[in-house]
Amino acid sequence: MAAVTYELIKTCKQSGARLGKIHTPHGTIDTPIFMPVGTLATVKTLSPEELNDMAAQIILSNTYHLWLRPGEDIIAEAGGLHSFMNWDKPILTDSGGYQVFSLSKLRDIKEEGVHFRNHISGEKLFLSPEKAMNIQNALGPDIMMAFDECPPYPAERDYMKASVERTTRWAERCLEAHQRPIDQALFGIVQGGEYEDLRKQSANDLISLDFPGYAVGGLSVGEPKNVMNEVLDFTTPLLPENKPRYLMGVGSADSLIDGAIRGIDMFDCVLPTRIARNGTCMTSRGRLVVRNAKYTRDFRPLDDHCDCYTCKNYSRAYIRHLVKCNETFGFRLTSYHNLYFLLKLMKQVREAIEDDRLLDFKEEFFEQYGFYSQNAKNF
Amino acid sequence: MAAVTYELIKTCKQSGARLGKIHTPHGTIDTPIFMPVGTLATVKTLSPEELNDMAAQIILSNTYHLWLRPGEDIIAEAGGLHSFMNWDKPILTDSGGYQVFSLSKLRDIKEEGVHFRNHISGEKLFLSPEKAMNIQNALGPDIMMAFDECPPYPAERDYMKASVERTTRWAERCLEAHQRPIDQALFGIVQGGEYEDLRKQSANDLISLDFPGYAVGGLSVGEPKNVMNEVLDFTTPLLPENKPRYLMGVGSADSLIDGAIRGIDMFDCVLPTRIARNGTCMTSRGRLVVRNAKYTRDFRPLDDHCDCYTCKNYSRAYIRHLVKCNETFGFRLTSYHNLYFLLKLMKQVREAIEDDRLLDFKEEFFEQYGFYSQNAKNF
Ligand SMILES: [Zn+2]
Ligand SMILES: [Zn+2]
Repeated sequence: MAAVTYELIKTCKQSGARLGKIHTPHGTIDTPIFMPVGTLATVKTLSPEELNDMAAQIILSNTYHLWLRPGEDIIAEAGGLHSFMNWDKPILTDSGGYQVFSLSKLRDIKEEGVHFRNHISGEKLFLSPEKAMNIQNALGPDIMMAFDECPPYPAERDYMKASVERTTRWAERCLEAHQRPIDQALFGIVQGGEYEDLRKQSANDLISLDFPGYAVGGLSVGEPKNVMNEVLDFTTPLLPENKPRYLMGVGSADSLIDGAIRGIDMFDCVLPTRIARNGTCMTSRGRLVVRNAKYTRDFRPLDDHCDCYTCKNYSRAYIRHLVKCNETFGFRLTSYHNLYFLLKLMKQVREAIEDDRLLDFKEEFFEQYGFYSQNAKNF
Repeated sequence: MAAVTYELIKTCKQSGARLGKIHTPHGTIDTPIFMPVGTLATVKTLSPEELNDMAAQIILSNTYHLWLRPGEDIIAEAGGLHSFMNWDKPILTDSGGYQVFSLSKLRDIKEEGVHFRNHISGEKLFLSPEKAMNIQNALGPDIMMAFDECPPYPAERDYMKASVERTTRWAERCLEAHQRPIDQALFGIVQGGEYEDLRKQSANDLISLDFPGYAVGGLSVGEPKNVMNEVLDFTTPLLPENKPRYLMGVGSADSLIDGAIRGIDMFDCVLPTRIARNGTCMTSRGRLVVRNAKYTRDFRPLDDHCDCYTCKNYSRAYIRHLVKCNETFGFRLTSYHNLYFLLKLMKQVREAIEDDRLLDFKEEFFEQYGFYSQNAKNF
């Protein structure tokens, strides 16, 4: 039996979205779910207890960053990532591939792997399917990701076809190199950009390798939202019903709903915590930039529809003051609220699936959020 | 009846230290006590709940900083500082005097008050006894401090005498300008530097004005520790037994114990939180600089004698990793530990007074802390 299994509870009659459970060595996750990102073995500004309080069920951490700092050997000595960072619920780590392709400008992609430079020190480094597995086996997350090539956007068809085929060969090497299949599940990543036939080729090849879960990669890389939805429209139906499906790098409220409607179970993104550290808050009525002068004497909570710790106890005026003064506690409050907002949104999505009304929920949510207004930039 | 009253529980037969209670509109404080500093209406990196968890009984905030940002009018509109920052236990604010004299290089001291420049914007500002009272009445702390002159260290006798006399005249104006004596207690500040006769003059003059509490100012400004202790030796006996005594700006473990032995009830300092943000931790065996390479693979807690949240859940290796990566959560963990360390120390001091053995406790603590070692710089 695989370390991680998927249980389909029901399908929304209105939208086709899936309500499910993912069983992992560190507990069960209700899906669809958003995963907060803890790049360096910490979800920036927050404690594990706060993540628990906001009902985070699983977090993501980054192989590339932990490999460089503090090094996977130290985390292994600490008893693994769960123990190192004091988080006993499920953890997913990415493969490092995305960072190699996004952070490093000097890189040389070979069949064996990728030569590149450390984005901090400039030091020469090499990452391969085998190395990515070694690191993730040392880190010990419940879910590991295969090492894939993240092609640029947009990419020519010929480049994409060659890349998809290499990603499949790498996926096979990942499976072979993976040393802990009993307690760590390795997910494959479907690539292929906007090309339906390449997505099909990628999905079929990876399905034949029988991964316990599949991610859809190469989206949320700069393409318009309708393109992402179209790609999902033809990609998720290719994936097996009895395995979890993970859409990588997506964290805006509209895309979470649209992804769930297209059969996605898992999402992650740094967006909510990154914008929080700039004083931007997600609310049920769109984005609120709490830095703005108009909140100087606004003693209402960030979001009057929100019952999070931040909104129950602090005013826009106080949070604005802290953010303007660069006080850590201000960024704790905005980070807490933004993550809570997305986690609660996913709970509402699960309830709407349960009630066979996810399309109705989407309309209500988009309307209130202001997505249909003239210049909707507030996602 | 004054807003704040002092109740003497007992005096340590061995040391003369006082065990007491201070009753305030927001609850009762056990003394001797250390007060964490929340300069900008936040104890840096920490939440009010965390301060509660570590048994903080009262916090200090800074009039000067809050006057500039966000402005006392906004805090008054929010219902006062307690409501603004979500802290319902006692608060003490300083008068702004210290910042005027320490942060502003261009200042002009007149009898009416001090003209100086905003340390952030350079804007021209004026602070006087009346203004300092207006601001503190708007902020609404339980304990307010009189606006005093903070003379340089060292200062000539003539300068100091004139300064002490001005501070008394200003103290009188503060009393007259104070609008909320029913729910806010105004403390006087005894000055006089190292001069015993001037301390006596200052104390007598202020006592004749009958403040509900007295601070000893002008210490911890660069003088050797033995000088501070000598000044306390002749100053605290001048102060009334039935009023609280507050030693301003002191937060090193040895000085807290030495101050309590000399009859001090209240202390504050940014030291524990400031050094925490540099990765320096106070432990029962002296200071520990968790940044150091030797802690890379050290999976022990910061202090094996400490039962704080940080020490119960996190290793030196993890905290070092966070601090090295400049991760907020690392500074939360070190700040929490350092404040907990001092709050627990004061609890031990109170227990030692209860048991008439504060001098014995001092010896044990200093010995373990390494204060008697060759190059004791670890306080
Ligand atoms: Zn909220
Ligand atoms: Zn501790």
